[in-house]
Amino acid sequence: MSVHIREIVENFPNLVSLVRGDHAHIITDLQEPKSASQQSLIFVGDRHHLQEALESKAQAWVVHKDLVEQVPKSIPHVFVSPNVALTMALVGRRLFPQTIHRQPIKGPAVHPSSHVAMTARLGKDCIVGPGAVVGENCILGNQTVIGANAVLEPGVKVGDRTHIYPLVYIGHGCEVGADCEIHPHTTIGTEGFGYAMDDKFTQHRITHFGRVMIEDSVHIGANVQIDRGTFLDSRIGSGTKIDNHCHFGHNIVIGKNTVITGGMIVAGSVTIGSYCVFGGRTTIAGHLSIPDKTKISGMSGVTKGISKSGDYGGFPLTDLRRALKARAAQRHLPAMLKSLKKIMTKLGMDPGELKDSGAE
Amino acid sequence: MSVHIREIVENFPNLVSLVRGDHAHIITDLQEPKSASQQSLIFVGDRHHLQEALESKAQAWVVHKDLVEQVPKSIPHVFVSPNVALTMALVGRRLFPQTIHRQPIKGPAVHPSSHVAMTARLGKDCIVGPGAVVGENCILGNQTVIGANAVLEPGVKVGDRTHIYPLVYIGHGCEVGADCEIHPHTTIGTEGFGYAMDDKFTQHRITHFGRVMIEDSVHIGANVQIDRGTFLDSRIGSGTKIDNHCHFGHNIVIGKNTVITGGMIVAGSVTIGSYCVFGGRTTIAGHLSIPDKTKISGMSGVTKGISKSGDYGGFPLTDLRRALKARAAQRHLPAMLKSLKKIMTKLGMDPGELKDSGAE
Amino acid sequence: MSVHIREIVENFPNLVSLVRGDHAHIITDLQEPKSASQQSLIFVGDRHHLQEALESKAQAWVVHKDLVEQVPKSIPHVFVSPNVALTMALVGRRLFPQTIHRQPIKGPAVHPSSHVAMTARLGKDCIVGPGAVVGENCILGNQTVIGANAVLEPGVKVGDRTHIYPLVYIGHGCEVGADCEIHPHTTIGTEGFGYAMDDKFTQHRITHFGRVMIEDSVHIGANVQIDRGTFLDSRIGSGTKIDNHCHFGHNIVIGKNTVITGGMIVAGSVTIGSYCVFGGRTTIAGHLSIPDKTKISGMSGVTKGISKSGDYGGFPLTDLRRALKARAAQRHLPAMLKSLKKIMTKLGMDPGELKDSGAE
Repeated sequence: MSVHIREIVENFPNLVSLVRGDHAHIITDLQEPKSASQQSLIFVGDRHHLQEALESKAQAWVVHKDLVEQVPKSIPHVFVSPNVALTMALVGRRLFPQTIHRQPIKGPAVHPSSHVAMTARLGKDCIVGPGAVVGENCILGNQTVIGANAVLEPGVKVGDRTHIYPLVYIGHGCEVGADCEIHPHTTIGTEGFGYAMDDKFTQHRITHFGRVMIEDSVHIGANVQIDRGTFLDSRIGSGTKIDNHCHFGHNIVIGKNTVITGGMIVAGSVTIGSYCVFGGRTTIAGHLSIPDKTKISGMSGVTKGISKSGDYGGFPLTDLRRALKARAAQRHLPAMLKSLKKIMTKLGMDPGELKDSGAE
Repeated sequence: MSVHIREIVENFPNLVSLVRGDHAHIITDLQEPKSASQQSLIFVGDRHHLQEALESKAQAWVVHKDLVEQVPKSIPHVFVSPNVALTMALVGRRLFPQTIHRQPIKGPAVHPSSHVAMTARLGKDCIVGPGAVVGENCILGNQTVIGANAVLEPGVKVGDRTHIYPLVYIGHGCEVGADCEIHPHTTIGTEGFGYAMDDKFTQHRITHFGRVMIEDSVHIGANVQIDRGTFLDSRIGSGTKIDNHCHFGHNIVIGKNTVITGGMIVAGSVTIGSYCVFGGRTTIAGHLSIPDKTKISGMSGVTKGISKSGDYGGFPLTDLRRALKARAAQRHLPAMLKSLKKIMTKLGMDPGELKDSGAE
Repeated sequence: MSVHIREIVENFPNLVSLVRGDHAHIITDLQEPKSASQQSLIFVGDRHHLQEALESKAQAWVVHKDLVEQVPKSIPHVFVSPNVALTMALVGRRLFPQTIHRQPIKGPAVHPSSHVAMTARLGKDCIVGPGAVVGENCILGNQTVIGANAVLEPGVKVGDRTHIYPLVYIGHGCEVGADCEIHPHTTIGTEGFGYAMDDKFTQHRITHFGRVMIEDSVHIGANVQIDRGTFLDSRIGSGTKIDNHCHFGHNIVIGKNTVITGGMIVAGSVTIGSYCVFGGRTTIAGHLSIPDKTKISGMSGVTKGISKSGDYGGFPLTDLRRALKARAAQRHLPAMLKSLKKIMTKLGMDPGELKDSGAE
């Protein structure tokens, strides 16, 4: 694949300006500075990248506006941008698209070995891979991709341009908006972990009548599970991005443009606002509410609802500054214990009290 | 779907009594109070539900016996029950069943695109979905469902009425009892993580001759893994419920009616008793034993065996009361450190000792 | 299956010596002492195993050289070995192989319902299971197994004798070496969790041009995800073993012969050395480096790079001894807090200071 500098100039007038360079110069790939060739385009967003770029073979740079004066005169092709990461994303997506994985086997777009119910309705230019199952009354938008061996139970709706990767499972009646991507081995909309116990301690399944409703432009990573609601629907707002390896219990509601890093576990009936950010391996206990614009650092445990937006962390959760201090203090615990014993002895108190668990 | 009040009265004589109401009244759905219509049936198990119910349109209520006197006279159809959650489960399951996901594509019950070995034996009324694989010498009970694209290796046995969801994997020779549900993307019975190292630090696979044996009425959520045993079988007792996103190493044995919430990780050769309850994201180190009726709170780390039933929590694990106190004390750590420094200065001691890690 | 003692003697001359026994004696299975029959072979690697062996019916033992003098004279067939676990692994693998799961349905080795692209190249004696998808330009080595319903996107390469289990997903262009095993529901090489935000807080996908490159003799468990690199490839070195339920973000690089226990989460752009060992449920934050021969205990959280090989643990991470002391001190926290209050009162200080979070 190759692209002229001209195409970048013409496609992104509001995002980049060409400081200097030849419109006819050919870019063959986007690269990291250290692995770039003379035909690569590299991205210099901060001082660290600048250092790497200075040692790179790349002849074409996209540079953050604050760094542009530090680009050597010897670099022939230089773009300036206020948002280098965004430039990287948009140039990559539009001019160097990766469509190779959209259909693993050549043939008709709806593969003859797929199983599309007679009552299903498919939009224009849909791709349905080998062995994929599209159940009764499913509705697929235009340019939707259903990967090989994925399974859509009856009544599932999938919006335009959404990419359901191979081996995804979507339960009956669930809906996925437009421009979403759902990665392999993700389970959307199985019955939640809801049981009622009788007087012989036997558990009886609670039927889940709700669905999972996913709005537009949502990313759901690989090996994620989102359970359906008991009566109402579980919901994921538009623009929300969920990394791999997350688990969401029944009846969860998540707002818009929230970013959830890998390994989050959310128990049932939790409500999460919009524009939140969660670090990796966060855990949220059931029936809690988290307001818009909340940030929670990785490995935190949320066991109480949060009433006010802000930055939080730790287990138990506190404001982030306090959490970082408490975490840093952990390593002094043995020394603290030792000093306390000394103090108590010095003051004629019984250091044996420290062995007491405090659980009397 | 619609059900007369009469049907509820007749089906559950030992669970509900009709305080007042019209046997011919039609219920169209089970609902949460806030989303109920006049034809819905709602469930009032505690004061919180009662408050919501008072603002609901629902004309038919199931109410816990202790709350029945607080139901307004204006509600025309009122059941009383000693176990509202159980009523919700049983009415839902028996009178409002969700069978829609049992076969995503109309056609013969054993889909022509499934791959059922000639030597496999199927009970009555089995459903085998598109693309599902049922290997040599497998035995399926009556009314068993094998979802689309699921894979059963040779010699697998599945009991009556068990629902294997699409995209499940079950390794050779493993057995699943009757009335189980196994959710998508779950792996039962691959070889465990067992290797022996030679003197060049190369790891050599230890063959796993054991199987995974799952008894009746077991729930296994989505994206769960249960490894087979090295020599003996890994075992899950009847009635045990395992939520999504759990990992069980080789040689594990779990008793009956134990409840395991999402995200548990259990290392190899662990034995867990019956009637235990585990909170979310619990971790259990290898070769430990946990007795019957043990409860462990979420995010705990178990690194030593437990000799006595009880409520536990924390990392390191202690009795639950102590664990909650220790967790609550965490946030005071920075202030404790600061105060200790002051005290030591006041007493003429060297507060520098606190920087010592205690690891001398 | 049955094997003569002679075959063990002949196959492993450098690993075992026959102390006494009959070359014609028949071994029917490898077993744990407690479940062994008279025809079983058991393995006695330490004193605990010896105790069990003394109560076993087994007539054939493999014993560690340091324990051989304690074997009763009544045991007729006794091998001695310097590495009992390795003997168990090699005897099991070579003389009692489990090939039963290599093809769930009898028929041609490349199942007629699999989807192998015309441009794919297959080595000798490959097995491709029912419903498996092998995309355009894929290259499979000799004796490679692609399990039922697995999906290989275009351009994937798989080395000789590697076993891709059913329902695995491998993204376009990724490479897996020889003698690897990849367990079900694992996702190799989907696009990483990389987004760039515009000034309206909308996230835009960053295209991932890198691949995932896996060297020889790598084990990857079930329900694992390894994201592809942004520009460069994510890499897993030869001999590395990764247990079930792990998540690796984009741009990760792992060395050779590293052992990663279940549930590890590694954020993006992390570099891990060779011969490392990670306990279960370890978490590693993004952009860190971990040197060769580092050992990290389970449930640790790594938030800073490690400069020196050694044993580490805890969150925050410290050297292992310190981490264990800090963890043990946790349970004394409530008593420490109580004693501190007493001391402060005694010294005329304000114990209210301890309520202060230290976050001023």
